[in-house]
Amino acid sequence: MNFADRLLEASRAKRSIVVAGIDPQLDASDAPGIPPGYTLTSFCCAVIEACAPIAVAIKPQFAFFEARGFDGMRALRDVIRYGRHRGLLVIGDAKRGDIGSTSAAYAEAILGDGDFGCDAATVNPYLGSDAMAPFVMRVTAGRGVFVLVKTSNPSSGEFQDLDVSGRAVWQRVARRVHGWGSDYIGENGLSPVGAVVGATYPEHARRARELMPNATILVPGYGTQGGSDSDAVAAARVDGTGVIVSSSRSVMYAYKNLRGRSVGAAASEVAQSMRASLNNALAKRQQ
Amino acid sequence: MNFADRLLEASRAKRSIVVAGIDPQLDASDAPGIPPGYTLTSFCCAVIEACAPIAVAIKPQFAFFEARGFDGMRALRDVIRYGRHRGLLVIGDAKRGDIGSTSAAYAEAILGDGDFGCDAATVNPYLGSDAMAPFVMRVTAGRGVFVLVKTSNPSSGEFQDLDVSGRAVWQRVARRVHGWGSDYIGENGLSPVGAVVGATYPEHARRARELMPNATILVPGYGTQGGSDSDAVAAARVDGTGVIVSSSRSVMYAYKNLRGRSVGAAASEVAQSMRASLNNALAKRQQ
Repeated sequence: MNFADRLLEASRAKRSIVVAGIDPQLDASDAPGIPPGYTLTSFCCAVIEACAPIAVAIKPQFAFFEARGFDGMRALRDVIRYGRHRGLLVIGDAKRGDIGSTSAAYAEAILGDGDFGCDAATVNPYLGSDAMAPFVMRVTAGRGVFVLVKTSNPSSGEFQDLDVSGRAVWQRVARRVHGWGSDYIGENGLSPVGAVVGATYPEHARRARELMPNATILVPGYGTQGGSDSDAVAAARVDGTGVIVSSSRSVMYAYKNLRGRSVGAAASEVAQSMRASLNNALAKRQQ
Repeated sequence: MNFADRLLEASRAKRSIVVAGIDPQLDASDAPGIPPGYTLTSFCCAVIEACAPIAVAIKPQFAFFEARGFDGMRALRDVIRYGRHRGLLVIGDAKRGDIGSTSAAYAEAILGDGDFGCDAATVNPYLGSDAMAPFVMRVTAGRGVFVLVKTSNPSSGEFQDLDVSGRAVWQRVARRVHGWGSDYIGENGLSPVGAVVGATYPEHARRARELMPNATILVPGYGTQGGSDSDAVAAARVDGTGVIVSSSRSVMYAYKNLRGRSVGAAASEVAQSMRASLNNALAKRQQ
């Protein structure tokens, strides 16, 4: 089944566009990455369990597992397995991009059936179409791809906003994303070749939608990277579909701000609140 | 010690600019990725052992280990350890790039002291300076960075060559690489913030050198991606320094073309031949 359709089906069943980012931070001097009493795996799985009825997908951030070495990769494998076991789609946030047989190996790693195989992957477009091809080819097996188009970090404009004959580089990337996905549009008019577009500037989201009418747009950083609820859904299609919104730290670390709640109870509370706020913003848009 | 100086010291000691790419291919229908009688780890280590007197560095390609799941990551850890044990610098070819604490986690993963910690890493610049910063910060600890500037795959021009006021996107990236490295130039006038520049078009290499006078330029794909010996060293500085050249498949799979030789003996023979050819091309350049 087409990944875009799988995602939309989950979204309708749960009345949710929430993606739970699984970003177990590294220890800082004043803040442990893993709460006392938890392991890396048990912390992530507690958040996944709490979010399973609320989120359409989890998005494990590979970096935080790689940084913990071999044990971290074991936890990543277990987290992916547990997410699927709980009926969640798994978006591997790996931002890979390479060429030739190497790109094919990354596609096998993240969209194959092995230990780190997910339902979808984030990819970096700098190397062009042939770097994307091994990922895009997997959409016929029900996998999804989210291409980095426009990010929301402070220096995202440094290369993404360079002006090419009146159009920013990221808009050129967006046009290609539309092209890569055009042969695989699902029953609901959405393509399994999606895009990552930050929520900081809603005008970017609207322009991204114009350039990629069929793409599912993944909006990261809800709750931490600025932007309101209406900004977060600014890329939605007229019918309210085509956008999913990810929050990582504000869900995983919700227990820090909600005294007396467990990791799971706090994550559930914040995820539910996020779901309601985003649904509200979507409803307002359609009025 | 500055990574660029460490690399140059190794290069002088071994009279070599050869980097041995460790790219254990996945099985294809007609070609096993691992030769009969070897394991993933023993195959890679046989190549490393053979190349240790000849190459200045090894460059394990993370994709081929990730694609093999948890066991592959164990092999990656062992390969990195063995390379260092044999006195080789290790360039983690991971092409990572992300933002904020995620980028810091990747830098910790690949340039830290953990299981997958290497001496240098390849990184993708699409997300801009703040995505690069956690990697660049590690150069004060003797680590190195190679930023993807201009690749040699068929579609590399799709975004990298877009014209921005008379200068290609990749040239804008090159200027920034020069800037990122400018505070860290070593005793030999080379910066630990280097660049990846494909060898397909020697005019790119020469232009890259103009834009990044202090960068060590890593030229990948020797022997497979086209380009002559003189093309491969076209980015060298006037004194012959500042370029290293990587070959992966033609060294690792040399045994297929050299009947009767072991994996190691064949790799050694091809690496020695590569070293001689490149040194010859460098010598011609300086005449």
